[in-house]
Amino acid sequence: MAGVDLNFDKLNGLVPVVVQDYSSGEVLMLAFMNRQAWEETVKTRRATYWSRSRNQLWVKGETSGNFQEVKEILVDCDEDTVLLKVIQKGVAACHMGFRSCFYRRLEGDELKEVGERIFDPQEVYR
Amino acid sequence: MAGVDLNFDKLNGLVPVVVQDYSSGEVLMLAFMNRQAWEETVKTRRATYWSRSRNQLWVKGETSGNFQEVKEILVDCDEDTVLLKVIQKGVAACHMGFRSCFYRRLEGDELKEVGERIFDPQEVYR
Repeated sequence: MAGVDLNFDKLNGLVPVVVQDYSSGEVLMLAFMNRQAWEETVKTRRATYWSRSRNQLWVKGETSGNFQEVKEILVDCDEDTVLLKVIQKGVAACHMGFRSCFYRRLEGDELKEVGERIFDPQEVYR
Repeated sequence: MAGVDLNFDKLNGLVPVVVQDYSSGEVLMLAFMNRQAWEETVKTRRATYWSRSRNQLWVKGETSGNFQEVKEILVDCDEDTVLLKVIQKGVAACHMGFRSCFYRRLEGDELKEVGERIFDPQEVYR
């Protein structure tokens, strides 16, 4: 990958990836990439992450159908964080059925649901 | 902090924090918080992070004057990531003098500067 040498050393071989809706600017989720996920994403233009819970490469949407088509890839000043601007297929990014994973806002000392639930996770992940 | 118990265990005591401009929705930077930084941010409404390079609590803007006034705090589904919506004081979030740290876009196999430089870092960090 000439010209782009991300720093995977600060986080045990991973970089954090901020995922933003290409049209609305809504932040959908945060995920991680290892070098292979990064290279796959650049090559295929389909968002591919490293699943820390499953410890494997994870093509977003492979289970739910909610793929992410990558429109823009931005890299931060330190070259240790990626920002993807994506078109979210199938309307929801969050496995809980919300458009964005950030569907709760801190109000006082409690989290209040502010996102709209789009699908029932039990119907999708069977 | 009743009602909100972030998971700091997945990343050695830290959670990643996505920082977004409250008005424009532009993603400004990614930073990390430990528990103390989280509690300070909630209490003071001034964005406070954990600096991994300096290994200390870091009130954003304490050197540059570019404070971040926190307007909204959102928490993700797994309670291991925070999204701050902030009013960026002093116009620039990035220590390189750009409004956003994500000022370069991958085009082909090269990074192309797409952000506008607002200040000269050598004039600010003396």
